[in-house]
Amino acid sequence: MLPWRGDLAGRIEEGVVDSTMLRGNVLGDPHERPVWVYLPPGYDDTEGSGERYPSVYVIQGYTGHLTMWANRAPFRQPFVETADQVFATGTAPPCIVVYVDAWTSYGGSQFVDSPGTGRYHSYLCDEVVPWVDQRYRTITDRESRAISGKSSGGFGAMITPMLRPDLFGALATHAGDTLYEHCYLPDFAAAARHLRAYDGDIWRWWDDFRSRPAFSKREDESLLTSVGISAAFSASDDGTPVLPYDPRSGVVIDEVWQRWLDWDPVRMVDRYADALRSQRAIWIDAGDADDYHLDLGAQAFRDGLARIGVADEKVAFELFPGTHMAIDYRYPLSLAWLAQRLAR
Amino acid sequence: MLPWRGDLAGRIEEGVVDSTMLRGNVLGDPHERPVWVYLPPGYDDTEGSGERYPSVYVIQGYTGHLTMWANRAPFRQPFVETADQVFATGTAPPCIVVYVDAWTSYGGSQFVDSPGTGRYHSYLCDEVVPWVDQRYRTITDRESRAISGKSSGGFGAMITPMLRPDLFGALATHAGDTLYEHCYLPDFAAAARHLRAYDGDIWRWWDDFRSRPAFSKREDESLLTSVGISAAFSASDDGTPVLPYDPRSGVVIDEVWQRWLDWDPVRMVDRYADALRSQRAIWIDAGDADDYHLDLGAQAFRDGLARIGVADEKVAFELFPGTHMAIDYRYPLSLAWLAQRLAR
Amino acid sequence: MLPWRGDLAGRIEEGVVDSTMLRGNVLGDPHERPVWVYLPPGYDDTEGSGERYPSVYVIQGYTGHLTMWANRAPFRQPFVETADQVFATGTAPPCIVVYVDAWTSYGGSQFVDSPGTGRYHSYLCDEVVPWVDQRYRTITDRESRAISGKSSGGFGAMITPMLRPDLFGALATHAGDTLYEHCYLPDFAAAARHLRAYDGDIWRWWDDFRSRPAFSKREDESLLTSVGISAAFSASDDGTPVLPYDPRSGVVIDEVWQRWLDWDPVRMVDRYADALRSQRAIWIDAGDADDYHLDLGAQAFRDGLARIGVADEKVAFELFPGTHMAIDYRYPLSLAWLAQRLAR
Amino acid sequence: MLPWRGDLAGRIEEGVVDSTMLRGNVLGDPHERPVWVYLPPGYDDTEGSGERYPSVYVIQGYTGHLTMWANRAPFRQPFVETADQVFATGTAPPCIVVYVDAWTSYGGSQFVDSPGTGRYHSYLCDEVVPWVDQRYRTITDRESRAISGKSSGGFGAMITPMLRPDLFGALATHAGDTLYEHCYLPDFAAAARHLRAYDGDIWRWWDDFRSRPAFSKREDESLLTSVGISAAFSASDDGTPVLPYDPRSGVVIDEVWQRWLDWDPVRMVDRYADALRSQRAIWIDAGDADDYHLDLGAQAFRDGLARIGVADEKVAFELFPGTHMAIDYRYPLSLAWLAQRLAR
Repeated sequence: MLPWRGDLAGRIEEGVVDSTMLRGNVLGDPHERPVWVYLPPGYDDTEGSGERYPSVYVIQGYTGHLTMWANRAPFRQPFVETADQVFATGTAPPCIVVYVDAWTSYGGSQFVDSPGTGRYHSYLCDEVVPWVDQRYRTITDRESRAISGKSSGGFGAMITPMLRPDLFGALATHAGDTLYEHCYLPDFAAAARHLRAYDGDIWRWWDDFRSRPAFSKREDESLLTSVGISAAFSASDDGTPVLPYDPRSGVVIDEVWQRWLDWDPVRMVDRYADALRSQRAIWIDAGDADDYHLDLGAQAFRDGLARIGVADEKVAFELFPGTHMAIDYRYPLSLAWLAQRLAR
Repeated sequence: MLPWRGDLAGRIEEGVVDSTMLRGNVLGDPHERPVWVYLPPGYDDTEGSGERYPSVYVIQGYTGHLTMWANRAPFRQPFVETADQVFATGTAPPCIVVYVDAWTSYGGSQFVDSPGTGRYHSYLCDEVVPWVDQRYRTITDRESRAISGKSSGGFGAMITPMLRPDLFGALATHAGDTLYEHCYLPDFAAAARHLRAYDGDIWRWWDDFRSRPAFSKREDESLLTSVGISAAFSASDDGTPVLPYDPRSGVVIDEVWQRWLDWDPVRMVDRYADALRSQRAIWIDAGDADDYHLDLGAQAFRDGLARIGVADEKVAFELFPGTHMAIDYRYPLSLAWLAQRLAR
Repeated sequence: MLPWRGDLAGRIEEGVVDSTMLRGNVLGDPHERPVWVYLPPGYDDTEGSGERYPSVYVIQGYTGHLTMWANRAPFRQPFVETADQVFATGTAPPCIVVYVDAWTSYGGSQFVDSPGTGRYHSYLCDEVVPWVDQRYRTITDRESRAISGKSSGGFGAMITPMLRPDLFGALATHAGDTLYEHCYLPDFAAAARHLRAYDGDIWRWWDDFRSRPAFSKREDESLLTSVGISAAFSASDDGTPVLPYDPRSGVVIDEVWQRWLDWDPVRMVDRYADALRSQRAIWIDAGDADDYHLDLGAQAFRDGLARIGVADEKVAFELFPGTHMAIDYRYPLSLAWLAQRLAR
Repeated sequence: MLPWRGDLAGRIEEGVVDSTMLRGNVLGDPHERPVWVYLPPGYDDTEGSGERYPSVYVIQGYTGHLTMWANRAPFRQPFVETADQVFATGTAPPCIVVYVDAWTSYGGSQFVDSPGTGRYHSYLCDEVVPWVDQRYRTITDRESRAISGKSSGGFGAMITPMLRPDLFGALATHAGDTLYEHCYLPDFAAAARHLRAYDGDIWRWWDDFRSRPAFSKREDESLLTSVGISAAFSASDDGTPVLPYDPRSGVVIDEVWQRWLDWDPVRMVDRYADALRSQRAIWIDAGDADDYHLDLGAQAFRDGLARIGVADEKVAFELFPGTHMAIDYRYPLSLAWLAQRLAR
């Protein structure tokens, strides 16, 4: 394996979705969004044959944006290449893989509709999916459409099929954000301490953050998460993110925190039990020493599926040795597993 | 300063309280408890003069037991000596200082009455206090009686005057346990991971812990806290500690967790507003990088006092540079401050 | 600033150097190596005018390979874009920037000639430089040629002008590897502990490492450094890396360690005093909390320059707040500074 | 086991050694030093019978002073009690245990003679040992005298029998200071960074340290070690500690560092091979995750013994799971092992 590039057996088409949903979003972020559509080996050969393919939508973690999928790392291949190999090697039957962009100026959208960021859930479901289905030979049935992601992308992969089981019939979550008392809440204490240097005003930090190289101060990651997740889950009607904690003491503000908890996949399981039971395949994994305790979230989500009666044979669950970092080698595993289970 | 010993200007009498309250406690811990009573310089000279003294009760952090007050450390003096110097140097007018023992087999009692440990609150208030008042020339009025402690002892120093304002009219909390979402909850995630090695059964760990040198495994501190605080706050009627989290996933169990929160001083402020407003003097401090985020708890407790209308001049508040460790040098500061404010 | 791409005012040509020096290298790594040549705004307009430009060679840190320069990160732009802006904004007069590849199967070469990896120093100096000078309108004098890098690239940027002052007349080192007792030696202890799981045989680890996703075990980074730096500095004649420590106890093996120290820029200063004094400009910086203590190395290197009499006005030195990570925003600062000082 | 006290089957006599050697020491530390002599069960009964006992000298880690042996800890007993149980339970035949004080104003002496601290080696060997032998029924032969300690005490337990095999015929080192490139050198980098706040002048820190509560700043532990170990190993003739590193850059100063290395037990093995081969019993252990890498030092020292031909059956060696802390439960293990092997 040479480090500089990898040739694909399939190919990627780079498109642009001109989103109506994202027009006029509060952050002024672009409504024209890039999208990559991976066409597996054989796709071009079947042109005209009418053969259609299942599709897997891939979404990113917080701060991710589409072109980061092309980033190269030492001793590893990008997912676009390891995903290609799943099909090139015949490990799984061919699928179309759709790389979706949901970046915002805050670093991400959590793939929900929010006045704090924009209508990213609707954009994904009602614009990107039809855009793909119109241009490529997908099987347009939910039984043949899956969604997958890591971290915030794993969160998106859990909630999107809950909200739209008519569109998605399978999912994979790698270290997906859930069990918020252990993934988000611990950071509030850190954030409150960091905010001492900003008189408790997170917007003073934000102005500072925008004025200098990002992540050049150690508080940046923590405070960006506060702003961004508040924008997604607890924005006021005018789009202002509302923090779920007192910025001076870190005291949790119950009513705002509840808005976050309403978006906790572990807590959504019962409310969306039918949607979850209707899934063909659910992959759940995390590193057993995940930095955000998402292994515990994975366990809790998996326990929730058992509680509502999702059949064991539909679930793949693993806590593997690892942290939250450098786990992209897990993605092709779930891709192959999903590809084997989607209807065709 | 020589390291091996320090002579006191006052003196300490070591007594034993034969507690009725602690008889038959569920853990089989002794009902005869040691108590140290420090008599300041001049006390013996005033024998027969009828002169009486304010008293300050001092309680310990989790896993503390009475004789640990005599422990010597490098380059430092024990609190029994630095407390003596407060009076020997005339920094504050003389007080009687009472060192109370509330050890249990789980490491502590949190100074509450609980079927999981015993009636340590009642023992302190209804047995130790009268025992002292009968034997020593204390001023027996609440205005002349204070309580002070660090960590779990700081917790005890916050709640005891809330529950018994008839007995205690002043308090000092150094890094006292409070704001439980930041001091206790983060540990549940760690505990759940540790329990993987014990099939999720904390009693398997407890048996193991008791069979080998304590704290010889890294999980010991975390799991001991789970057992001990559950024993104090959420024991069942038969005395069994009930964990506030699922031992497999760390999911918070709301109804048990609420029992803990009911004992969170930050959350008790409004319920006990009158008792708090009646205090003559309240000292609150913590290291600004406290390992358990008790600086945030201190801030929240202080904010709570302001909210209910405790006058600023009655409160001393400081977040000083430091962690949770090696902060015993703060104790004589609060002792002097309290001694200056107690009625005589 | 949109995250997905940035347009350049200049342009990059991607070439391939067919290296004679690297043919038959012990690791079987390719001898055809990619090279990127950045041509500043105006370069194409001066075609035929005979106008020539200074050049700055840019080399990478350990595990880096050329195409990683194109990686995109959240809220930041790649160096190829921030470098372009240095010239696009007129911050500094135009230069040609050459991005050099010196990747090996061990992750890097340290830009030295070694039987353990290959003749990367000679390749850089005697092949890449002439290749560029033949194809582009560079000023081929040493006074107009600089070299810059971070981490292992900073090391390369320190030593290459020492060895070849005839070629390079200026340099910039960002957190360059030096002061080996603090940057490399601490890791030997960690490595020895890690090797317990491999019976003290680092080649057992290497085989394991190659058989699974890289960096999926926590020992990977440490042990890879051991192998790779030994390959560069202390390989036997047949190319086998020889560790400078006993793999069981971590005891330093003095004669091997001395081979490393012979390559420590701090220790090379006096041996190469003339070469260093001949430099027009030397930029040295590091984060003041660098993970590998390279701030101390930077200080020591800077002190060494003073000791041998390098004039202060030729040196830029700064320890800025930061660690070893996310400091790429420093690169355009040194690029501009160098560009302003190269002869034209 | 109750926490407040433990009764001994034997008894401890507290004495004072009026040392000639320590008179006029450079630090002005007392020359009258406390010593505790533990007399095992049965000792008093054999008064007049002429029965004599082997002796084990116990020395402390850095910053330790004699009375700290009485400190009580949660869920544990002090070594004076666990040592007593070794004999009370008949695990090993009775010995006299001598607790030696070698405290200095810098925190310790490393049990060597140094102009920087005083003649602590000679005091131990030529004053404390005779003092004990004159007052108690010891067997005064080397074959019946051992020395044991942890950390700096383990160091002392390694070197004292090397220097004085005429006095000591057995030893136990728990996490003893050795392999200085991994136990001391890593701290030089930390120290140099800390010294930035003191203009690189460690004596400015020392003045500050003495003016406030010890260990109330995070740099205290590191810088105290620098001062104290320099005082022991590399003091100038007038007693001034000379640092083995440049306080600004952390660069190791070879000639001073060599003075430290001359005191590295791992490096002393060959010079003192006869003395070591003459030992009856050598216990070596350390936690496998020792904070100062003393597990590696233990391994290296054990390897050294094998190299010089110390018979395996004379050596007990174990790397147990643990760090540098809370390992006092190991002390009675080595005490019993030594007691079983001393001549009687």
